[in-house]
Amino acid sequence: MDDRVRFSLDEVRELVASVLTRHGLAPAHVEACADVMTAGERDGGGSHGIFRLLMCMNSIRAGKVTLDAEPVVHDVAPGVVRVDAGGAFAPLAFRRGLPLLAKKAKAVGVAAMAVNDCCHFAALFPEVEAIAREGLVGFAFTPSHAWVAPAGGSRPLLGTNPIAFGWPRPGGDPFVFDFATSASARGEIELHRREARPTPPGWGVDPSGEPTTDADAIMAGAMLPFGGHKGSALSLMVELIAGPLIGDLTSVDSIAFDDGARGAPRGGELLLAIDPSRILGAAAGDHLARAEAIFDGVVSQGARLPSLRRYEARRRSLSEGALIPRKLVEEVRALLD
Amino acid sequence: MDDRVRFSLDEVRELVASVLTRHGLAPAHVEACADVMTAGERDGGGSHGIFRLLMCMNSIRAGKVTLDAEPVVHDVAPGVVRVDAGGAFAPLAFRRGLPLLAKKAKAVGVAAMAVNDCCHFAALFPEVEAIAREGLVGFAFTPSHAWVAPAGGSRPLLGTNPIAFGWPRPGGDPFVFDFATSASARGEIELHRREARPTPPGWGVDPSGEPTTDADAIMAGAMLPFGGHKGSALSLMVELIAGPLIGDLTSVDSIAFDDGARGAPRGGELLLAIDPSRILGAAAGDHLARAEAIFDGVVSQGARLPSLRRYEARRRSLSEGALIPRKLVEEVRALLD
Repeated sequence: MDDRVRFSLDEVRELVASVLTRHGLAPAHVEACADVMTAGERDGGGSHGIFRLLMCMNSIRAGKVTLDAEPVVHDVAPGVVRVDAGGAFAPLAFRRGLPLLAKKAKAVGVAAMAVNDCCHFAALFPEVEAIAREGLVGFAFTPSHAWVAPAGGSRPLLGTNPIAFGWPRPGGDPFVFDFATSASARGEIELHRREARPTPPGWGVDPSGEPTTDADAIMAGAMLPFGGHKGSALSLMVELIAGPLIGDLTSVDSIAFDDGARGAPRGGELLLAIDPSRILGAAAGDHLARAEAIFDGVVSQGARLPSLRRYEARRRSLSEGALIPRKLVEEVRALLD
Repeated sequence: MDDRVRFSLDEVRELVASVLTRHGLAPAHVEACADVMTAGERDGGGSHGIFRLLMCMNSIRAGKVTLDAEPVVHDVAPGVVRVDAGGAFAPLAFRRGLPLLAKKAKAVGVAAMAVNDCCHFAALFPEVEAIAREGLVGFAFTPSHAWVAPAGGSRPLLGTNPIAFGWPRPGGDPFVFDFATSASARGEIELHRREARPTPPGWGVDPSGEPTTDADAIMAGAMLPFGGHKGSALSLMVELIAGPLIGDLTSVDSIAFDDGARGAPRGGELLLAIDPSRILGAAAGDHLARAEAIFDGVVSQGARLPSLRRYEARRRSLSEGALIPRKLVEEVRALLD
């Protein structure tokens, strides 16, 4: 039985906006947050759609997020933008900073944007996609809550610490990927716990550091990075460059701030943008066209090219709407009471 | 039986320099290449020490590398340096470009350096370590030869595509990591083949794309990225940003250029440098100090912090010299005849 409800994307946006407005979020933030969650449903739903409202509501109810801070954009250096989000949700801060990030990348060749003091509930792919749609190569990194042990360890120190990348494809949708550097999402482990199913191997360790497939033991112990010591090194990198390098919280700081509220991670985000035209000049177009041979080489051997599934889901949901689990819809509608 | 020969690091450097000089490499390149291979032996040896001479000799003998090109440094944009290596080995080009990369990062906040048209035999860690010793955060990426299939594929498309990262630690050695985005090094598979031992699972697929632990079948099929589709995405990213983005060869182009010579990969390298002081101003020192808590959090739970083993090996070899397999020493000495 497919117990899902069909929503047009306008209806998704309206539902999200109603809930956030009802709970006091300022209009500009409502719009930016609703856009991001609608983009999640549009591109395949799951944990990055309106499901994220539940986490946002935890932040709001616990007073862990500022509802009306207007982001302040600082021009810090020829290649550096800093956006002070003032403790509010991140999407509006990104939106306010993006034009200056793009302008700097186009002037200087490469630019960095630090988004500081924000409450981060969203996937990073809409951000690197937006950078790529400016004709730039984009990178995004953010810590989260300390749930993940370093490879060989037993205690949570790192966040799920996603890495996202966007690449402009002339005449087409950007190539984008966005993944957690943990072996699994936190929510997937919770799901296995609720259903009392063993997890796949490699997702976590028990409190003594022994590998386990028992979701309860992982929740008491720690999640693991993907890909052994290499994924662990990348997670450490994210922790460093989107924490201390931009003067913001680590995943350990974030979970301490959360203090059991189960809200969105609090801290910063680092974005980088590179302008191919500033490196290659007039030859940029030819070389971007050469990149297409790499994508063809993936697809022609039947391997999955990251982002293709997302764009297929997008095309489908733009015409047919999105299917959302009935139980989730009911949970979200209850937030309107 | 430990059939290894003890060399002082000066003796390592001298042996490497003699071989390269004997085969016509220009003096400035000899010095830069010998430094890099000596650094490999100094930091634990293995495949990044004088073993690399064999690959360099293949390039030289096949006429796949220019022996005397002087790198040309171009100031391309306020945040972009381009070094044209002129078909020569990479280490000298990096060395010539580093001062301008560091200067730009300190002026602008973030800078990129493209090293173009080089023959790349070395590990990336000496480069990100050098960037970090300038007080900057460093990243390095380079394609290699197309030996690796994308996750879910069966045909070589990607290189072993390493990613390296360096982070300045005030008063201490930089935090550095440097790893291939393939599940294993090419040399490790060759070693298993020679010894007719099965490889660990996950290293490769046979020509039909089926997972295999047969090293011969992997050599005929393809190596795999580390960490499934996430490592595969990162390898694709390296291919893009250190290939078309800097107007240089992909791993497919490189192996075609090599044409069976078994020489070093040919193409480009992308480096990024970020200046914490240009993001954080006077607070940079305090925030770099906060990063130390992350490193402590790794070490205190008994997990391995990348680069610590390397620095321990360095301290040991600086006082006691390096141990090099006798067979390798004989192979290298034979190159002097």
